[in-house]
Amino acid sequence: VIETVRWKDGRVAILDQRRLPDERRVLACESVEEVAEAIETLAVRGAPAIGIAAAYGVALAARLAGGEPRPFQSRAIREASERLGATRPTAVNLGWALSRMRRAHDALGESDPATVERVLLEEADRILEEDLEASRRMAEAGSVLVPDGARVLTHCNTGGLATGGLGTALSLVTRAHATGRKVSVLVDETRPLLQGSRLTAWELTEAGVPHRVLVDAAAAWAIARGLVDLVVIGADRVARNGDTANKVGSYGVALAARAHAIPFYVVAPASSFDPSLASGSAIPIEERSGREVTRVGERRVAPEGATAFNPAFDVTPGELVAAFVTEAGIFRPPYDFTAERLAGGGGP
Amino acid sequence: VIETVRWKDGRVAILDQRRLPDERRVLACESVEEVAEAIETLAVRGAPAIGIAAAYGVALAARLAGGEPRPFQSRAIREASERLGATRPTAVNLGWALSRMRRAHDALGESDPATVERVLLEEADRILEEDLEASRRMAEAGSVLVPDGARVLTHCNTGGLATGGLGTALSLVTRAHATGRKVSVLVDETRPLLQGSRLTAWELTEAGVPHRVLVDAAAAWAIARGLVDLVVIGADRVARNGDTANKVGSYGVALAARAHAIPFYVVAPASSFDPSLASGSAIPIEERSGREVTRVGERRVAPEGATAFNPAFDVTPGELVAAFVTEAGIFRPPYDFTAERLAGGGGP
Repeated sequence: VIETVRWKDGRVAILDQRRLPDERRVLACESVEEVAEAIETLAVRGAPAIGIAAAYGVALAARLAGGEPRPFQSRAIREASERLGATRPTAVNLGWALSRMRRAHDALGESDPATVERVLLEEADRILEEDLEASRRMAEAGSVLVPDGARVLTHCNTGGLATGGLGTALSLVTRAHATGRKVSVLVDETRPLLQGSRLTAWELTEAGVPHRVLVDAAAAWAIARGLVDLVVIGADRVARNGDTANKVGSYGVALAARAHAIPFYVVAPASSFDPSLASGSAIPIEERSGREVTRVGERRVAPEGATAFNPAFDVTPGELVAAFVTEAGIFRPPYDFTAERLAGGGGP
Repeated sequence: VIETVRWKDGRVAILDQRRLPDERRVLACESVEEVAEAIETLAVRGAPAIGIAAAYGVALAARLAGGEPRPFQSRAIREASERLGATRPTAVNLGWALSRMRRAHDALGESDPATVERVLLEEADRILEEDLEASRRMAEAGSVLVPDGARVLTHCNTGGLATGGLGTALSLVTRAHATGRKVSVLVDETRPLLQGSRLTAWELTEAGVPHRVLVDAAAAWAIARGLVDLVVIGADRVARNGDTANKVGSYGVALAARAHAIPFYVVAPASSFDPSLASGSAIPIEERSGREVTRVGERRVAPEGATAFNPAFDVTPGELVAAFVTEAGIFRPPYDFTAERLAGGGGP
């Protein structure tokens, strides 16, 4: 278990993923603003992980205003929720976690500030615990999809770092490896921020899973060459019909998987689903600074003055997804995700 | 016209593309080995350009051995041709240019070394001149494919830098711009060596063509979003049936173009075609060092010890290509490229 986000000594402790794999440094966030900036700058990233970070951010607001009269504390909590909710638009887990915190807060009525502080921290802890449990269940449910000898391709990072510490899509692979299956992974480097080569390769190295990094543009060719048996990715937001927003590049991989008839699986907890959206066309897609593209680290690679188009996500149509794995089981097409079905369970 | 490769004062002068866009430095190669290394390390790259560089490399060998008896000079020329021919396997232009040099040499029979030196330099000059003329003709023939208002996506660099100085696919765009059409370009950055953001963006900046760089993984999304009217790429080797080896990532772009019904054009001179191959499956695909992937410049981005899969090219099936543009005109499917047809001409 990687401690991506934890509550420590009254602070939100965030493993700074911008510095991985070179350095393992923990940010001890002492203010809501620090948590918000950690999310915005991708010190913490991955849909489930940013939901957890936001939840602890709200708990931190409750604690920092714990000595104030109740109305002031409530306002601080509300403002924190707004600030945190505005950090990144695509992953629905963020709004989902903040909704849960808001409901927990609303249920407290006139309780005293110390109770609010305690209850909100408990709720954030619960969100983290549920995420870890969801990861265990997804790894178990998805186990049948990663047979012995499987050669897997993945995009971005969906391991412990993207979650409370265990992972979504990558956990299927690490579990298969841990249970003695021979598996190997082709890791899309995932430009511009290289979550694949920096984070996924690091997690797979730690787990002892054989893997090779490749540029994103080589994924379609690896699939065409017959080097890939299945693709697994995570999700930032899944619409009712299975349209899936995920790290930009996922859609291209899905097209290549379809062209060569290999399965493309999405592994994500119920908290990444947004049944309120009929389709993916309504999912807001974050555009980030062009500097992420025109520079690599501090080094400028494009000409002075060059501009970039830098969408952080894309949307893969549900029809390209062979199956979804959630903590409730495996869902096969046609997809019609509702809160009830996501709670009730997919197939075996 | 960019002077990518020129004969200067008895040396092969190569504009060092590894240093662009930051620095414009010319390598004055004084030995065949220096020319070979310039090709291997991508100081000069682009299928037509490496053919020209190899031709001048042979001319250089003839000159360096110009004071030797004829058999020694012949051996030096043969060895140079072998060394240069072994530098990179995929672009057929390399073998094509070396064949021409060999034929020119063979035709000389017992001529004296000074004549050999002169004739081989003339042949290399002719290869360069023909390339410039082919670029002019491709830009003219392909002009109808880039209408006013066209939003073009391209992968890698197919401008002057990839050729004798005028370009293949990119020349369609720069010509459209120069003739007053409003065109804009989305430039795939083209990992691992960033020929898109370093070279194409630089050429488009110099030409004043509006453009934005994007990560390769975002190309499919840009197409899905309706931001692209057509795709143009170059080619390193085209088989008889139109299967096209080009910079890795081209195939993924072709799949996305097909999925969204926008045309995908390949622009390449006859020297990039290899009618001796029935299909693309026989095209040798170069795999380069994994360090190009695990490092960006000198900076390591993947964990210590990480390995990479680094194919430099992929093969796009001819059925995904809406048209080929060569100096002989436009070819539409079904494709059956022969030397005669490539010389004789495609459609209007």
